[in-house]
Amino acid sequence: MTLAEIADRLGCRLEGDGTLVITRVATLDDAGPGDLTFLANPKYASRVATTRASAIILAEDAEPAPCAMLRSPQPYRSFAQALSVLGRNERPAAGIHPSAIVAPDATIGVEASVGPLAVIGAGATLGNRVVVHPHVVIGPGVVIGDDSVLHARVSIRERSRIGARVVIQDGAVIGSDGYGFVTDGDGVHHKIPQQSVVVIEDDVEIGANTTIDRPAVGETRIGQGTKIDNLVQIAHGVKVGRHSLLVAQVGIAGSSIVGDHVVLAGQVGVAGHITIGDRVTATAQTGIPNSIEAGALVSGYPAIDNRDWLKASAIFRHLPELRRQLKSLETRLEALESRLKG
Amino acid sequence: MTLAEIADRLGCRLEGDGTLVITRVATLDDAGPGDLTFLANPKYASRVATTRASAIILAEDAEPAPCAMLRSPQPYRSFAQALSVLGRNERPAAGIHPSAIVAPDATIGVEASVGPLAVIGAGATLGNRVVVHPHVVIGPGVVIGDDSVLHARVSIRERSRIGARVVIQDGAVIGSDGYGFVTDGDGVHHKIPQQSVVVIEDDVEIGANTTIDRPAVGETRIGQGTKIDNLVQIAHGVKVGRHSLLVAQVGIAGSSIVGDHVVLAGQVGVAGHITIGDRVTATAQTGIPNSIEAGALVSGYPAIDNRDWLKASAIFRHLPELRRQLKSLETRLEALESRLKG
Amino acid sequence: MTLAEIADRLGCRLEGDGTLVITRVATLDDAGPGDLTFLANPKYASRVATTRASAIILAEDAEPAPCAMLRSPQPYRSFAQALSVLGRNERPAAGIHPSAIVAPDATIGVEASVGPLAVIGAGATLGNRVVVHPHVVIGPGVVIGDDSVLHARVSIRERSRIGARVVIQDGAVIGSDGYGFVTDGDGVHHKIPQQSVVVIEDDVEIGANTTIDRPAVGETRIGQGTKIDNLVQIAHGVKVGRHSLLVAQVGIAGSSIVGDHVVLAGQVGVAGHITIGDRVTATAQTGIPNSIEAGALVSGYPAIDNRDWLKASAIFRHLPELRRQLKSLETRLEALESRLKG
Repeated sequence: MTLAEIADRLGCRLEGDGTLVITRVATLDDAGPGDLTFLANPKYASRVATTRASAIILAEDAEPAPCAMLRSPQPYRSFAQALSVLGRNERPAAGIHPSAIVAPDATIGVEASVGPLAVIGAGATLGNRVVVHPHVVIGPGVVIGDDSVLHARVSIRERSRIGARVVIQDGAVIGSDGYGFVTDGDGVHHKIPQQSVVVIEDDVEIGANTTIDRPAVGETRIGQGTKIDNLVQIAHGVKVGRHSLLVAQVGIAGSSIVGDHVVLAGQVGVAGHITIGDRVTATAQTGIPNSIEAGALVSGYPAIDNRDWLKASAIFRHLPELRRQLKSLETRLEALESRLKG
Repeated sequence: MTLAEIADRLGCRLEGDGTLVITRVATLDDAGPGDLTFLANPKYASRVATTRASAIILAEDAEPAPCAMLRSPQPYRSFAQALSVLGRNERPAAGIHPSAIVAPDATIGVEASVGPLAVIGAGATLGNRVVVHPHVVIGPGVVIGDDSVLHARVSIRERSRIGARVVIQDGAVIGSDGYGFVTDGDGVHHKIPQQSVVVIEDDVEIGANTTIDRPAVGETRIGQGTKIDNLVQIAHGVKVGRHSLLVAQVGIAGSSIVGDHVVLAGQVGVAGHITIGDRVTATAQTGIPNSIEAGALVSGYPAIDNRDWLKASAIFRHLPELRRQLKSLETRLEALESRLKG
Repeated sequence: MTLAEIADRLGCRLEGDGTLVITRVATLDDAGPGDLTFLANPKYASRVATTRASAIILAEDAEPAPCAMLRSPQPYRSFAQALSVLGRNERPAAGIHPSAIVAPDATIGVEASVGPLAVIGAGATLGNRVVVHPHVVIGPGVVIGDDSVLHARVSIRERSRIGARVVIQDGAVIGSDGYGFVTDGDGVHHKIPQQSVVVIEDDVEIGANTTIDRPAVGETRIGQGTKIDNLVQIAHGVKVGRHSLLVAQVGIAGSSIVGDHVVLAGQVGVAGHITIGDRVTATAQTGIPNSIEAGALVSGYPAIDNRDWLKASAIFRHLPELRRQLKSLETRLEALESRLKG
């Protein structure tokens, strides 16, 4: 594709030779002739001068580069679009692979693709153009909306409801039993049957080997447009709002409610039966034992206001010094006291 | 089923119309006509007045509800029983699916169910009424006790021994190689063969995508009745006692011993080669570098007594203020000192 | 095998009866007649006197044991070698199981073993003697080097490149989509296509249910000889050096660079776009928000020098006491001040 065509499809202003043929998007360091690169993070600006790319996407006010330029008001967004425009089509062919095991009463939408050795349970319904990669297991009564993609070895347990345009990465488990037990007087734990459902709304993405549990009653729900990274644990009865980001290895305990546009960074933990308000951000490894009001930026364990945490953390390493100072003050004070007593 | 019959099976005292027909258990908020709800957590007591349920399970001394009531000495336990009584039977039919690949010398118990595309290795033994869901892989020489249930895509490696009534959720891995290496003088790590076994005792539950490693020698063992949540890591040679709870994303390093009735809350980490006594509880995200005596309640990293940790944590955010106070005391003390010197 | 033969193969000095026949390696506690045990960790030295083993591996200067002895300059290494010498051969037979689904244009090396229900995609290449266990899914265009072993239910996504002698434990996912989104002015997240590759160099081991993401451009790379434990998350574009150790539940965020001979203990988190120098060690649960210089030993969150952290942590629990002392000093100082004023 020529650079002029790409500029047109991305809505970028072209500076340089529009007849260049571009075949690939690459990083500043990796790019060579025929490649389009990009500058989105100012941290990497110094690498522009030495790039071997044929063309670069960059901001309107960025320093000129030694190659053709696509000027963009939002370079990172234009980069993403360039990937879509120049990317591969890796969608498998429509149709049901002969080795897949599809229940006779399952419904498969038009142009859907069901890969080798997938298992589709009784009464399940797959929308149009759904892609089911090899070894996916879809339980009885599951419903999956149009254009969703399930990568290899995903497990969707019975009666879960998955929206449209949902992407689920390899090995994720949707609808496993919630961790619910009643403990008797002898400390023996008895299983509470977990037979209710998980609902995944439209446009959600779920990462590799992430697990989302079903509750005994009610539902576990992930709101529209929320993106969940790898190895995240969502317990039974949790409700996550719309357009939130749950980064890798986050854990949310049972029955908690997470608002819209929330960001939980990597390895954050959220206790059970609490509410995280809209637009809350928690930095990495934060532990949240109590409800958090909308808009807060929190850190630490237990979670406190991020600025307070930054200040307190900066002092933490000086605790030995503080203790010495305290000791020294005490000695000096004693000296004064005994002098005045005398 | 009528409410009177349910009251009878749950051993609850009925207040109200026993002829009501109940079809489902539901939460206070979701319940409607025909539903039985429950009040177990006092946090939700205010919602009783507005429930649309036909009946409710609640404590003997709870405020009366605007519907039929099942009075219980243990409402949460009665709720769990109601779910069993009213729940679905989702047990797949007995028999071996024709697509399963079962070694000729494997032994399958009576009324066992082996699902589509399961693989059962040479010499494996499955007890009576065992349920193996689709895509489970059972290695050579594995033994599984009566009435155990293996959900989809579970992997049981060679020679692991699984007890009776064990439930393993989707994607869990039992018996993967322990993380054992010898490092030479050049810092190169050489694999130590990990060929010993994992033993899972009776009545254990193991969560989705949890991993339990085999050791080189000796065994990794999970004691009777212990319940393990999702995404937990149990390293090689660990021994977990009976009736313990390991909540999501807990990690236990190699050769450590965890007692009976221990509770490790979410994201807790336990170092290797240490002992956690019986009835220890560690709150979420606690890091345990050293052995802990029986009965302790610990928090923080490194783990300390929970009350000490709560008090210290409450002061942590005030460290900047403490430092200012210290500075101010020093200034005042200097003023006194110089005045007295003069 | 006789003890004399084992001594010879391990290069150990024999003290005692070389004609003893040894069948197994076992722990000090478990060993009985016919077993070879070992003492590598001085913590367990007191158990030597009571072992029932026929022979023991121990250091040249260790106290004599009540059985035949193999004296070794490196007892742990000799133990590992003994396991190799006496271990089982669990390598499945070469050949492609008839239930495996292998693309017609895939290339399978000599003496490779492809297990039941494995799926090998178009154009994939497997080296000589590669072992693919049941239910492994290998995507189109994947390349796997000689002598690598993929345990059950591993997922290798399209075009990933795996070196020689790599071992991947059950359920691991290599090449899932990176967590990359562009957020628009309404807070809606749009997926950035992730179509580049993961490269795993020679002699790497990857643990059960670990996930390694592919980036949009560039590559994610794991250097030669690095060993990764279970449930680890490696984000898109991360580069890990050679001979490093990433212990269970570690998470590394996007585009970060981890050096050679680095050790990240369990549950450590590393932020995105930073550099961890060679030979850095981070103790368990450390959170690393900024780059770390080569050779550092760090702890805590945010990560600081390990000695500083140990000292500060020891004082942390005494914060309530420190605050009381501060208060008391203030009172005493006020008393002096008012006395001097009077």
